[in-house]
Amino acid sequence: MKQVCIIGAGSSGITAAKALKEKGITFDCFEKGSDIGGVWRYNNDNGVSSAYKSLHINTNRNVMAYSDFPMPDDYPMFPHHSHIIKYFEAYVEHFKLREHITFNTAVVDVLRNNDGTYNVTLDNRQSYDYQYVIVANGHHWNPRFPTPAFQGTFTGEILHSHYYREPEQIKDKDVLVVGIGNSAVDIACEAARTHSGKVVISTRSGAYITPNWIWSMPFDNLANPLTAKLPLWLQRMLLNATLWLARGRQEDYGVPKPNRPVLSEHPTLSQDLLNLSGRGLIKFKPNIKEFRGKTVVFEDGSEQDFDVIIYATGYKVTFPFLKHYAEFDVEQTNDIRLFKKVIHPEYKNLFFLALLQPLGAIMPLAEIQAKWIAKIIKGESKLPSKEAMLQSIEDDHQKLVKRYKQTPRHTLQVDFFTYKASIEKEMKR
Amino acid sequence: MKQVCIIGAGSSGITAAKALKEKGITFDCFEKGSDIGGVWRYNNDNGVSSAYKSLHINTNRNVMAYSDFPMPDDYPMFPHHSHIIKYFEAYVEHFKLREHITFNTAVVDVLRNNDGTYNVTLDNRQSYDYQYVIVANGHHWNPRFPTPAFQGTFTGEILHSHYYREPEQIKDKDVLVVGIGNSAVDIACEAARTHSGKVVISTRSGAYITPNWIWSMPFDNLANPLTAKLPLWLQRMLLNATLWLARGRQEDYGVPKPNRPVLSEHPTLSQDLLNLSGRGLIKFKPNIKEFRGKTVVFEDGSEQDFDVIIYATGYKVTFPFLKHYAEFDVEQTNDIRLFKKVIHPEYKNLFFLALLQPLGAIMPLAEIQAKWIAKIIKGESKLPSKEAMLQSIEDDHQKLVKRYKQTPRHTLQVDFFTYKASIEKEMKR
Repeated sequence: MKQVCIIGAGSSGITAAKALKEKGITFDCFEKGSDIGGVWRYNNDNGVSSAYKSLHINTNRNVMAYSDFPMPDDYPMFPHHSHIIKYFEAYVEHFKLREHITFNTAVVDVLRNNDGTYNVTLDNRQSYDYQYVIVANGHHWNPRFPTPAFQGTFTGEILHSHYYREPEQIKDKDVLVVGIGNSAVDIACEAARTHSGKVVISTRSGAYITPNWIWSMPFDNLANPLTAKLPLWLQRMLLNATLWLARGRQEDYGVPKPNRPVLSEHPTLSQDLLNLSGRGLIKFKPNIKEFRGKTVVFEDGSEQDFDVIIYATGYKVTFPFLKHYAEFDVEQTNDIRLFKKVIHPEYKNLFFLALLQPLGAIMPLAEIQAKWIAKIIKGESKLPSKEAMLQSIEDDHQKLVKRYKQTPRHTLQVDFFTYKASIEKEMKR
Repeated sequence: MKQVCIIGAGSSGITAAKALKEKGITFDCFEKGSDIGGVWRYNNDNGVSSAYKSLHINTNRNVMAYSDFPMPDDYPMFPHHSHIIKYFEAYVEHFKLREHITFNTAVVDVLRNNDGTYNVTLDNRQSYDYQYVIVANGHHWNPRFPTPAFQGTFTGEILHSHYYREPEQIKDKDVLVVGIGNSAVDIACEAARTHSGKVVISTRSGAYITPNWIWSMPFDNLANPLTAKLPLWLQRMLLNATLWLARGRQEDYGVPKPNRPVLSEHPTLSQDLLNLSGRGLIKFKPNIKEFRGKTVVFEDGSEQDFDVIIYATGYKVTFPFLKHYAEFDVEQTNDIRLFKKVIHPEYKNLFFLALLQPLGAIMPLAEIQAKWIAKIIKGESKLPSKEAMLQSIEDDHQKLVKRYKQTPRHTLQVDFFTYKASIEKEMKR
């Protein structure tokens, strides 16, 4: 019997494999698709990739890379997905991880045995017992639509951003993009550049549009362990000042001013939206009130006809192989409460990887989570008591509630540096 | 006999028509194509339009508009060419100019009569005498290619930016854009966004990439009559500081640093190039050394294969209807020396309109030139002596030589405010 089962060989699964291998822990990694890379493999045959053809990372290359494996020198500052997948392939090659991964094999069921081990059933009907299971199946693949649904029926075409690949899909069509997150804005900008049909973004609350660059530095270089320690009001003041210096007031470009303070939402990064709005190529509307055929009525009473609606309204956190455990059925709310985002106090041998949304990149956090898990398995790190874990979970939740809007979008939000430091602290316990 | 013949009904011809009409001067305006608008009518059937499908003005709406006819309130800050042509149509409608324009009629010859009047021959073989001729045939329609031509033969496709319309023309092709002016950069950026094939810009000297926006203001709002009066070294210092604040150092995005000081070249405006270079989508090479089939050898010794070369290398100043006068055959150099860019001292009844390239928009300058011409015709403004005109031309030339690189690109360069003030002064003479 091998010690650990890793579910998924995306950017988190592979760094988990590396962490376990380095500690001499035996494991299997099962990947539903035919290759590694998860969301970063364009048109991944495991169906989980939402990457569109023109997608570039919106955190810079240095922020995204694993700690001990820098991206090649000839990579641009904001690489394309084709660069990223090659980087992951090189990582797997370098650390000789491929031989530990079983491809074209989905995990369909995970059941806890009486002795605390887990029985893992594969889609080939075989099943194996493992002491530990690491869940790394990703949280950007199961499309979320607005709930409750809008009144009426839209008779045009409906597309979730998960299925958007290239502008040909919407060419010559009047497009309404619902949402103002990163996918929404990328898609709206790409649509606007095809110059055929109108492009409108419908947003309830707006977003602070953050450029990729400031003074020729990647904007995300401004975040650092020092600023992370400042009180929230001061962080907000500094960020507001920096945004003003970088691009002035977004209202002047025609992009609505958000109705909440900065840092209450996951940031929307775009070097393009303000300029395209200032050229009249993207317009804005408030939330949808109802549909009447191809006519969309907005909450301000205005109405317009559209050929296609793109819902860039995020994803559900879903664990199909944990269907026997109600604790993990969180699709409605995305609200899963884990100790340090990794461990459910009742399921200590089950680890969740990368179930977070940082201001920054996920990969380095998945990497450190994986190292921590390896230490726990080796007995080099101890978990606190169940009561202490529950208290920690409650504290984290209160902090989140205080800062972010209560939506399924923000349940996984963490501050990159604060979170990283807290895991480093746990590793020494 | 009408008093004046206007050649061309583009943005300059129509404002000339208005200026004459307001002064009660009789005139004909002949337009080769079937409608007004010149370069701003997309796919103009007179063949002069270089506008590509996605073209937006790169000076803002307020800078570009005629002084007494603002653009509609619902226009974006940087309107699309489809907005601009509608604006010109509204101008012609409002001032009832259309009845004075003869469409589908080209002027093929202009000859000076012994009495100082001009005989104008049309392509329908009719000819008429006029006291004055206003040349408003534009200077952005006769493609210029690099001279002397590069060594060797390129066996791929060759396209001048004049004939570029939309990315479909170069889709899936490896593209080399020669030049780093506004068309070069717009086309390279659009090509890069199609994400198929490489996009490389070859530039001898580089250019200072100036954003369209700074602190949510149009960048061109920074220029004003006050800054125009500052000494050049101080203007350069201020512009360098402003560029740094707006976008840092362009080298950090991968765009080469120009080898001449700022304000030595016509500015290249782009909100896109730095970001796309920082994403690795546009690369840079020095000047071309030679061609070997589809291989291009650059001056640094490197070589790459391309499917298509786009020469965004500017235009020749050409007056086909003045072929009998060697003074106006300036295609090789674009170096035509006129008093205040309008009048050749030997041909006082011949006026050249908008034969300039301002840091700013051409239209308001063409408008004030036209008003000045109308005053001259009415006898309300006097021209200085021939000697004084020659001296003024020489002074202007020396200033130009001191500041700009000596290429056909910069013979028409003027400072918007300084030039405007000098014409206002002439009007009072």
